[in-house]
Amino acid sequence: MPELFSAVDVIAAKRDGGRLGDAQIDWVIDAYTRGVVAEEQMSALAMAIFWRGLERGELERWTAAMINSGERLDFSHLPRPTADKHSTGGVGDKITLPLAPLVASFGVIVPQLSGRGLGYTGGTLDKLESIPGWRASMGNDEMTAQLAAVGAVICQAGSGLAPADRKLYALRDVTATVNCLPLIASSIMSKKIAEGTGALVLDVKCGSGAFMQDFALARELAQAMVELGADHGVRTSALITDMATPLGLTAGNALEVRESVEVLAGGGPADVVELTLLLAREMLDSTADSVEAKGVPGAGIAPGSSAAAKLADELRLADPAANLANGKAMDLWRQMIAAQGGDPDAGLPWGKEAEVVVCDADGVLASLDALKVGIAAWRLGAGRARKEDPVQAGAGVVLHAKPGERVVKGQPLLTLHTDTPDRFDSAKDALAGAWSIGSEPMEKRSVILGRVG
Amino acid sequence: MPELFSAVDVIAAKRDGGRLGDAQIDWVIDAYTRGVVAEEQMSALAMAIFWRGLERGELERWTAAMINSGERLDFSHLPRPTADKHSTGGVGDKITLPLAPLVASFGVIVPQLSGRGLGYTGGTLDKLESIPGWRASMGNDEMTAQLAAVGAVICQAGSGLAPADRKLYALRDVTATVNCLPLIASSIMSKKIAEGTGALVLDVKCGSGAFMQDFALARELAQAMVELGADHGVRTSALITDMATPLGLTAGNALEVRESVEVLAGGGPADVVELTLLLAREMLDSTADSVEAKGVPGAGIAPGSSAAAKLADELRLADPAANLANGKAMDLWRQMIAAQGGDPDAGLPWGKEAEVVVCDADGVLASLDALKVGIAAWRLGAGRARKEDPVQAGAGVVLHAKPGERVVKGQPLLTLHTDTPDRFDSAKDALAGAWSIGSEPMEKRSVILGRVG
Repeated sequence: MPELFSAVDVIAAKRDGGRLGDAQIDWVIDAYTRGVVAEEQMSALAMAIFWRGLERGELERWTAAMINSGERLDFSHLPRPTADKHSTGGVGDKITLPLAPLVASFGVIVPQLSGRGLGYTGGTLDKLESIPGWRASMGNDEMTAQLAAVGAVICQAGSGLAPADRKLYALRDVTATVNCLPLIASSIMSKKIAEGTGALVLDVKCGSGAFMQDFALARELAQAMVELGADHGVRTSALITDMATPLGLTAGNALEVRESVEVLAGGGPADVVELTLLLAREMLDSTADSVEAKGVPGAGIAPGSSAAAKLADELRLADPAANLANGKAMDLWRQMIAAQGGDPDAGLPWGKEAEVVVCDADGVLASLDALKVGIAAWRLGAGRARKEDPVQAGAGVVLHAKPGERVVKGQPLLTLHTDTPDRFDSAKDALAGAWSIGSEPMEKRSVILGRVG
Repeated sequence: MPELFSAVDVIAAKRDGGRLGDAQIDWVIDAYTRGVVAEEQMSALAMAIFWRGLERGELERWTAAMINSGERLDFSHLPRPTADKHSTGGVGDKITLPLAPLVASFGVIVPQLSGRGLGYTGGTLDKLESIPGWRASMGNDEMTAQLAAVGAVICQAGSGLAPADRKLYALRDVTATVNCLPLIASSIMSKKIAEGTGALVLDVKCGSGAFMQDFALARELAQAMVELGADHGVRTSALITDMATPLGLTAGNALEVRESVEVLAGGGPADVVELTLLLAREMLDSTADSVEAKGVPGAGIAPGSSAAAKLADELRLADPAANLANGKAMDLWRQMIAAQGGDPDAGLPWGKEAEVVVCDADGVLASLDALKVGIAAWRLGAGRARKEDPVQAGAGVVLHAKPGERVVKGQPLLTLHTDTPDRFDSAKDALAGAWSIGSEPMEKRSVILGRVG
């Protein structure tokens, strides 16, 4: 059968600032998935979209076509509501690790499909793989069984979900078309919608260590994704959160797991705890909204029924801080890790060598740049330069102070960890100008910059 | 050895509107030629250039890098000056066929490297291949020998000339990045400069059947190419000529050879004769300038010498119309065709079937659209949809009237020729609205719209 459109015509239409028709969008995503639209054609189209953008209706259709390129999961037969969280990625962002078991400890099913890191942004799966025995990959049936038994899973997305996104994501990475709002929004939302979650909370990062350095752009991205969720019946909201400085005191795989376990044990750095609790609150509220609107078919709870109202009320009244304090979230974490072969009691690896970077003045730490710390951690071995590279479980950066804290000259500011000490120099190069020290006390800033949804 | 740059960084720099550095340009063209920069990366860069353009200095460096991607020919040992012509392509543009032997008949060596058609624009090699026995492909030594013996050659460029352009041209064709001024200018000029001609005349087409529909853009393209020629010591000038309506009365391979032979025999359509004579004048004058400035090393004529001045004067006084009338250009055509295996006396093929399109009103033919006639000829089989497709030697369109001429209802306006009569309908579809008939007489327009150089 002849093809419905010519790739050149579709590229030229977007190049010239036109709106792509629904049939053109459906065709180009499908033909790209089939290999009929070549990589070099899709990259030219991606650059034209980078230039010209996608209108609201085009973005909606583009996302739907990406979803339709593969299978959709369905958890509606499970007897509890589902919720998921997605972060656009930042330095030291380990929130998924405490958050998934915490929310699941309130009886919400959390099917958290995650990815690996590329570039300086860490990947949740890379972090968890530093736990001896833990495995990221599981089939759909195995995942569903774990959700029914434990209530939470953090695993790799199967290759059947949004395969067009898988191809396009890899292509964008090598063609300087990553940082493009409609392509980011459709990539994230196609995977999350295909995943079949009932409620979704987005953590849109804003600052030097994030895709979006500008608040207005971060807000626009959040708005676009919240609308795409609504289009597909997924109750979606977004928090816009600060990524000017790393989250918590660690950037690196095992380092971040250790810090996450501290949070689950009722401790941990204030900003990680704050953001975990805020996102948990947001997920519980969104789940409540979703229960009221759509019921829980697998539990026989009808939309608008008194059973739905009761469950929604329970979720809204749930206190996330309590389940960090009373150990329920930690219990769920241990079950979740063990179900995927991991030993929650095993020691976590450390980098073979460490080097301390000291503070060069007395005063108040005014800033500590997320991007530079992220690049240093990456160069130490915590991240990968190419998809096929391995990561070092123990590599990374530990922060000994956060912006706003008093520091004195000569005190340790950062500790660098790696198995490959010849990387210390390039990591230290990346840290040139990474911090500034002032004399005035600073007001404590909230990690939350805004909310959409 | 590690690569000097990352392709993603180069693409991102241009995407963000930056000026590429000389070393970046040299690297990206070289790495693309070596296959280190992938097709999908180059297409993203081409689209970014389509968007952001190239500054004067970037364009110069880009063109130089394309030239340096391969070999350069050198005809300076031949005892006569060299000149070449390049047209940006149009419908019915067969001017190279009479022009090359006409200019060579004045003792100028014409090394005319030509291409095949893609899309609705015909290719000079496709046209000449309708002559029984004629072959387009020859080695550099064979080409040089023919130039020494005959004075003119029209053949396919060897694969060693500007290989980066060969790859990029094919890529642009499938990624909607053809119609981009700096990429057009660098593609044309890199090949022509690598070809080693001493003087170059450009025929920049403007109108519906050309890359450039707008005079200001055509002028800008001409200016950019004239400057690139000057940068590399090639005496370059450009005529901007009309492509609102087809050139001459034929569009199609054998049809156009037949019309070219009529011109060489002293006849032919007025516009084809006019443009042939104007371009011949331009080539002879440019060659004269080049002889004065650079001498003719192969003939022992020094720059600024009295011998140079004498030869330049002869070239400036030469009368192209005379050599069409006296048969000297025709003699050279016959030698040139025979030297490449062609039989200048052989009958040329006709399409197996013909269909006449008649005029639908009385009046003055006000317009006859070049693009629509070009597409009709293409659909009849004169052109190819994909590089690997064959063309029909006999297919095409014959015009029975030109804009400005009186027509009567029912008279033949066009005759369509093809070997595959099932294509008549789609060719006639392409001709919908192709002409308009008015009541007022029109002033005769010159084919020349402007000149640069």
